[in-house]
Amino acid sequence: MRTEIATLGEFGLIDRLTKGIKLENESSKYGVGDDAAVLSYPSEKQVLVTTDLLMEGVHFDLTYVPLKHLGYKSAIVNFSDIYAMNGTPRQITVSLGLSKRFSVEDMDELYAGIRLACQQYNVDIVGGDTTSSLTGLAISITCIGEADKDKVVYRNGAKETDLICVSGDLGAAYMGLQLLEREKSVLKGEKDVQPDFSGKEYLLERQLKPEARKDIIEKLAAANIIPTSMMDISDGLSSELMHICKQSNAGCRVYEEHIPIDYQTAVMAEEFNMNLTTCAMNGGEDYELLFTIPIADHEKVSQMEGIRLIGHITKPELGCALITRDGQEFELKAQGWNPLKEEK
Amino acid sequence: MRTEIATLGEFGLIDRLTKGIKLENESSKYGVGDDAAVLSYPSEKQVLVTTDLLMEGVHFDLTYVPLKHLGYKSAIVNFSDIYAMNGTPRQITVSLGLSKRFSVEDMDELYAGIRLACQQYNVDIVGGDTTSSLTGLAISITCIGEADKDKVVYRNGAKETDLICVSGDLGAAYMGLQLLEREKSVLKGEKDVQPDFSGKEYLLERQLKPEARKDIIEKLAAANIIPTSMMDISDGLSSELMHICKQSNAGCRVYEEHIPIDYQTAVMAEEFNMNLTTCAMNGGEDYELLFTIPIADHEKVSQMEGIRLIGHITKPELGCALITRDGQEFELKAQGWNPLKEEK
Repeated sequence: MRTEIATLGEFGLIDRLTKGIKLENESSKYGVGDDAAVLSYPSEKQVLVTTDLLMEGVHFDLTYVPLKHLGYKSAIVNFSDIYAMNGTPRQITVSLGLSKRFSVEDMDELYAGIRLACQQYNVDIVGGDTTSSLTGLAISITCIGEADKDKVVYRNGAKETDLICVSGDLGAAYMGLQLLEREKSVLKGEKDVQPDFSGKEYLLERQLKPEARKDIIEKLAAANIIPTSMMDISDGLSSELMHICKQSNAGCRVYEEHIPIDYQTAVMAEEFNMNLTTCAMNGGEDYELLFTIPIADHEKVSQMEGIRLIGHITKPELGCALITRDGQEFELKAQGWNPLKEEK
Repeated sequence: MRTEIATLGEFGLIDRLTKGIKLENESSKYGVGDDAAVLSYPSEKQVLVTTDLLMEGVHFDLTYVPLKHLGYKSAIVNFSDIYAMNGTPRQITVSLGLSKRFSVEDMDELYAGIRLACQQYNVDIVGGDTTSSLTGLAISITCIGEADKDKVVYRNGAKETDLICVSGDLGAAYMGLQLLEREKSVLKGEKDVQPDFSGKEYLLERQLKPEARKDIIEKLAAANIIPTSMMDISDGLSSELMHICKQSNAGCRVYEEHIPIDYQTAVMAEEFNMNLTTCAMNGGEDYELLFTIPIADHEKVSQMEGIRLIGHITKPELGCALITRDGQEFELKAQGWNPLKEEK
């Protein structure tokens, strides 16, 4: 079943995609259907705004990414940025640029993923723009969220002796991508071969259906911990550590042995003959939280499940370095994903 | 002078483009440089959010649109949506998808236009995303603004007997586009020929450097008029009237003789052998304000410069119609710009 988008036009498509959307948040006053959405935030809250632009062929490859997953992930990466400010996402706007290749049913799929993510994280779709594109798919999502005024966490507050923490594990999404890319090249031209991903489900899930760490933000709040700095890991741990240190005018030491890595990630790195630590430090798309806490909160954090202490903040003169298992120091380099450098 | 964007990378480019940006609005607390921007609005204000996605080849043609103008217009179209809610734009985020064709200097130009628009309208650039694109340029701007809680104007409040008003004049931007398209096809392959646009400057300006009607919103506020419904004219007067009537469950009568049209627009329509009223009703990209007011405000509005009364709201059963100069009634049709229908 394929319905051409031209049969509906812009407004028909928007009506179809946004049908039945209900606004769940107190701060969402008016959603899709006017020149702008109308929100209302109490004055004790700060309003957080983040935006991401995802371009086909750069950020995603539709030969192996199902549209529903793509929609889900497009929303999640924005939620993750709001959590990284110690906030709660409340609304998104969704802009789509569509080439003729896409059908109404394709957009149903994409939107189903976006709507699922919004349901899971209690976020309202309040607006957007739907238009055509001469080539490929462009997805631009803006997320609006809130945080208590005195609890917003920036990247620039890390202090000497602070402990560096990371949630979850790293490198798996990158390994999932390698796996998908390998299968793509292996299967090229062989339509009936189904790739065997058994035992690698976690890697695929991390790449195709990441989650934002709402739970970590809630745990920190429950434990009364306000990180001194925080960001989410989208470009890779090394790159993000360097952002925090640069903006906080600090240095850092992180320990290879403490970097959290899942078993499947390690197995895949072995299979691909890749350096596991490099993958975990630079892989990116983990959407885990990287944050620093005062040393006084050490005990509280060390009791929390799913959070690993990986190092500490130093004076800026000491720079940013990784301490390997055999005690060597390597200066951190941002080898993470930089779309404007890696352009082919 | 051409510097490849790859020599700077994403963060280098962002640093360059956003250098020296100061936050001017009280509500802008933290701008570019973290996971999200931080805003703070007083609780008596509603927060307005609108977003537009502009794709090369669909929304703009770089063979005749200078990048600086494109940047300016990209910002303006968003401001216009905020004014159309009877609000004031305060912040924007700017996301760009760039192909390798674009240099750092190109981006300087584009951003100069965006920054100029922000200066003119007192809006802060607080964030965005800069990434690569396999083909062409994608520009996604989200604008955040504010309005007093009891003064937000929607599309759905038009009542029977309300008067229909429009600011400025219509059809000129569309004529400007026709003019540019004609010159483009005439000049194809003849590099040294300069097109002669003298006497047509207004049309080009309306197409290439539109303004948002901040002044009208201010005048209405000064006169203590709150429109019953309002929207900006981006897709064409017919299309927008139909939106207001549909959402207000009303009909309308507009009078051909009252549609405001500039002299240059009329001359060009003649030259192109096009129906002038059709151009004014369906041309689009006017970024004028279309609004309805209670009949009691008739006198106040009729004294305002730059606002024209073009008709009135009726019962829904009467439908939406244009009354021609010779008294005939024609049902309105949305022949305006619909990118998902017109796709080539």
